[in-house]
Amino acid sequence: MGDNIEVFQQLFTPSVQHTLDLVGIFFFAISGALLAVRKNFDVFGIAVLAEVTALGGGLFRDLVIGAVPPAAFTDLGYFLTPLLAALLVFFLHPEVERIQLGVNVFDAAGLGLFCVAGTTKAYEYGLGLTASVTLGLATAVGGGVLRDVLANEVPSLLRWDRDLYAVPALVGASTVVLCIHYDALNPATSTLAALAAFALRLLAMRYHWRAPRAWHRRSTAAEVPD
Amino acid sequence: MGDNIEVFQQLFTPSVQHTLDLVGIFFFAISGALLAVRKNFDVFGIAVLAEVTALGGGLFRDLVIGAVPPAAFTDLGYFLTPLLAALLVFFLHPEVERIQLGVNVFDAAGLGLFCVAGTTKAYEYGLGLTASVTLGLATAVGGGVLRDVLANEVPSLLRWDRDLYAVPALVGASTVVLCIHYDALNPATSTLAALAAFALRLLAMRYHWRAPRAWHRRSTAAEVPD
Amino acid sequence: MGDNIEVFQQLFTPSVQHTLDLVGIFFFAISGALLAVRKNFDVFGIAVLAEVTALGGGLFRDLVIGAVPPAAFTDLGYFLTPLLAALLVFFLHPEVERIQLGVNVFDAAGLGLFCVAGTTKAYEYGLGLTASVTLGLATAVGGGVLRDVLANEVPSLLRWDRDLYAVPALVGASTVVLCIHYDALNPATSTLAALAAFALRLLAMRYHWRAPRAWHRRSTAAEVPD
Repeated sequence: MGDNIEVFQQLFTPSVQHTLDLVGIFFFAISGALLAVRKNFDVFGIAVLAEVTALGGGLFRDLVIGAVPPAAFTDLGYFLTPLLAALLVFFLHPEVERIQLGVNVFDAAGLGLFCVAGTTKAYEYGLGLTASVTLGLATAVGGGVLRDVLANEVPSLLRWDRDLYAVPALVGASTVVLCIHYDALNPATSTLAALAAFALRLLAMRYHWRAPRAWHRRSTAAEVPD
Repeated sequence: MGDNIEVFQQLFTPSVQHTLDLVGIFFFAISGALLAVRKNFDVFGIAVLAEVTALGGGLFRDLVIGAVPPAAFTDLGYFLTPLLAALLVFFLHPEVERIQLGVNVFDAAGLGLFCVAGTTKAYEYGLGLTASVTLGLATAVGGGVLRDVLANEVPSLLRWDRDLYAVPALVGASTVVLCIHYDALNPATSTLAALAAFALRLLAMRYHWRAPRAWHRRSTAAEVPD
Repeated sequence: MGDNIEVFQQLFTPSVQHTLDLVGIFFFAISGALLAVRKNFDVFGIAVLAEVTALGGGLFRDLVIGAVPPAAFTDLGYFLTPLLAALLVFFLHPEVERIQLGVNVFDAAGLGLFCVAGTTKAYEYGLGLTASVTLGLATAVGGGVLRDVLANEVPSLLRWDRDLYAVPALVGASTVVLCIHYDALNPATSTLAALAAFALRLLAMRYHWRAPRAWHRRSTAAEVPD
């Protein structure tokens, strides 16, 4: 696996990869900060929800693969970027809400970047192909789940009345693993995997693609979570 | 402790232990998938809740004892079994609901198996007797708590109006630790501990055994969680 | 850093530090147990919420810095103290509620002790100054967040209509890190940092200091959580 690690580390130059990470972190943090404003949290709550949304998925991945202390606590840029997003939303949230479409587009970009980076890092740490896909997915969607749990809402990831979110990340992570399996992971294929997840998420939002609920579900409106 | 480990590893043949683990995982996953259907989640939400319910307790235990990557991410069978349960519930949930009694019986079996396996593994990793009991308990009930948190419900484990669930697991875990203390842990006593937890849970369901609430509680219906 | 560790370990004699830890754990556990009584949980739910509130923050810190098994599972006193608090609340909760002011004062003391101890331990394990402050804060407030999540409530930490809680802990943790930076951390400055957090929290409760919500927030009563 030593060779693989070497190849992976050259996927992108470190500074390019780091910049991409910060971009993804920033837009995830925006989505956390906006939910905090909607929930009427104070400035500190806005900062906490921004941090958790942006770093929660990667933190979970790092604990699982034993990469401690996690990157969220060793890279100052990872920590400060969500604070910047929180500050922006604190002062300008009506303006940020107004460009919700733009935020969603960048959140989709974050989803694409994180599922690829998470899958690659999990494989580098010795996990199998299936486990790497699972952790790539968890890296991409974990922060959003923690955000919703802290805001005391049913995770939007699990709700049937939301556009597909996990499936695009799953496709991106699976593409990475297929490339690894066929020894074809390189900057070009990595970028392709991230773009595939990005594009799928945009299409899901545009055409309101949704996943089916259980078959033969009886109508039970009373059971629908608020 | 080296001797102990050797003894423990021979408790059951690996394949027997593995089969028992998969059986417990399967029935825990069924309970997660059924709650997801009741909460109106989509097919992906059903799969996530099945995975979390089945593997969450063991994942927490493995992170605490430093067994990374956790078994949930290294054993493909552990990962695929909940998906099978989710698929079954997705297509046949009315039939599965109808045999709820049977599901509860098997969930009780999972509880017995997990509290024994969790306690044994924690002790193998060098934890003290009390800590091993605590982690055995957490292994058995942790997945269910995570399931309820993700579904945005008060964990059924904590509610006074549910039949005893933790106490049977506590009895099973304590039995294991007593056997360790008196150097009497072997396949027979392990099986006995699991059966004790299993039987206690069945009795608690049959006779609606419940734990008391705080003494002299004033009647405050308004404070009762939904 | 070796020198630093030696200095830190002499901050207080081990038995003094341990006693302070147990005092903080006890009062955090009381706050968890009282919420459990209010939520109508049974005796087991009271014990779980006491344990989680008292040990959750330190557990998270230990997992992040790789100190496994975490202190919560290796020190019997850490485990038994919350049970004692739970027992007390179980039998005497009307009396404990009546002295809520006293409980809040001691919870504030716990906050001061935990933010200092958490920051120091994180730095000892090699984290940077900013990350140490973050983990000190997480040690102090993490248990309360977990308590509220398990009780299915919006974490009181994040709500704008609660008196400042995180800011005092942040001040305490930052003071520790400033002392480290200027090579001035000793028992006296540590005590000062803990006292500063303690006093700030008392003042915040006395004068109902609160953090601002987002600027130009439109009135949207319907969106206010419960």
